[in-house]
Amino acid sequence: MKKSKISPAVIRRLPKYYRALTELSEIRISRISSKQLGKLTGFNPSQIRQDLNSFGGFGQQGYGYNVKNLKENMERILNIFTNKSMVLIGVGNLGKAILQYAEFSENGFHVRAAFDRDPNKIGTKIDGVRVRDIDDLAEYLKENKTDIAILTIHKDVAQRYATICTDHGVRGIWNFAPKKLKVPEEVIVENVWLNESLYTLSYFLEDEWEDETESEEKE
Amino acid sequence: MKKSKISPAVIRRLPKYYRALTELSEIRISRISSKQLGKLTGFNPSQIRQDLNSFGGFGQQGYGYNVKNLKENMERILNIFTNKSMVLIGVGNLGKAILQYAEFSENGFHVRAAFDRDPNKIGTKIDGVRVRDIDDLAEYLKENKTDIAILTIHKDVAQRYATICTDHGVRGIWNFAPKKLKVPEEVIVENVWLNESLYTLSYFLEDEWEDETESEEKE
Repeated sequence: MKKSKISPAVIRRLPKYYRALTELSEIRISRISSKQLGKLTGFNPSQIRQDLNSFGGFGQQGYGYNVKNLKENMERILNIFTNKSMVLIGVGNLGKAILQYAEFSENGFHVRAAFDRDPNKIGTKIDGVRVRDIDDLAEYLKENKTDIAILTIHKDVAQRYATICTDHGVRGIWNFAPKKLKVPEEVIVENVWLNESLYTLSYFLEDEWEDETESEEKE
Repeated sequence: MKKSKISPAVIRRLPKYYRALTELSEIRISRISSKQLGKLTGFNPSQIRQDLNSFGGFGQQGYGYNVKNLKENMERILNIFTNKSMVLIGVGNLGKAILQYAEFSENGFHVRAAFDRDPNKIGTKIDGVRVRDIDDLAEYLKENKTDIAILTIHKDVAQRYATICTDHGVRGIWNFAPKKLKVPEEVIVENVWLNESLYTLSYFLEDEWEDETESEEKE
């Protein structure tokens, strides 16, 4: 199965399966059915089986899934524990929050350097990560192979620093700046635009909506 | 069309259409084809047509979509500009970053109060929002109708404050704490677990993966 053939919707569910499997292995559950995994993740059991089948299965009829084995397969598929080097660009509140988010560094995603233009921040350390002058970004990337750049800077300068990153071998951009980036075809951009999840939440909040649409459909 | 019948995957695409439409209307583009909308959002044109059809269409064969009209419909569907009251719980770096995220307040989502337990923060203002003692949360919610609670506190206390919120009429929780919350059935939780988007990005980064799976499939 080629990566490109698997739909993004499936891929977005994998980290949720991984989270559930991690929780299960923490409480020493050794096997689980797709039905139980459905309860934990909120997805339909048949969808879960179908998703996992697209990576080769991992389950057995009448037995379910071996938690440890499935978790390890998710780790392999998601490249967890493969020691990715990251840089963080923009040490504002969001940047600091991400630097302090311990979970992903425990899983092999390491922020090796942070960059900002504020002289008061340059030279300080946040959670063990040194803040450097953003003007030294290109030079740093030349000398230090970096897999992922985390963009937590203002949207007006996001493209400029994204380009510096991709020009220097960065292959993945975790973009928190509300700006659609232009990158070379081989570069992966994952946008985290917080508004979008708020609007998704908001969608469900209006009770009156249902009737309105029904009356429109009659037109 | 009942809300419950529309798949979450469709709903997650709506804010992305809305973003594209907002950008288009800013540069005064008045109509757009599903193909063009596909280029802007990265989705398949036929999927876009199908998504929009599930809300009643909005487009015309051979004409495409009227940007202003479609944007207004997205606003109605996503309850944008309906003046939602929000509270933010946990004024750490992430909480501060969210308070400073202007875009959603311009779109009718207003953070009316923030809560923390740190005496140094209580009584201060961040972007015009007063920080209150977290012990006063229940009392505040009794007196101030609140639609959405933003949870940016430690996962170990997230459930406790989520329960206080839902006990006092909060119908939506925008949860940044990496903790699955138990809430009454009528309450909507939107989890923003940053790790998940990093793992999604990471999925695409390993070139060697494709061959490995192909050889496994032969077993």
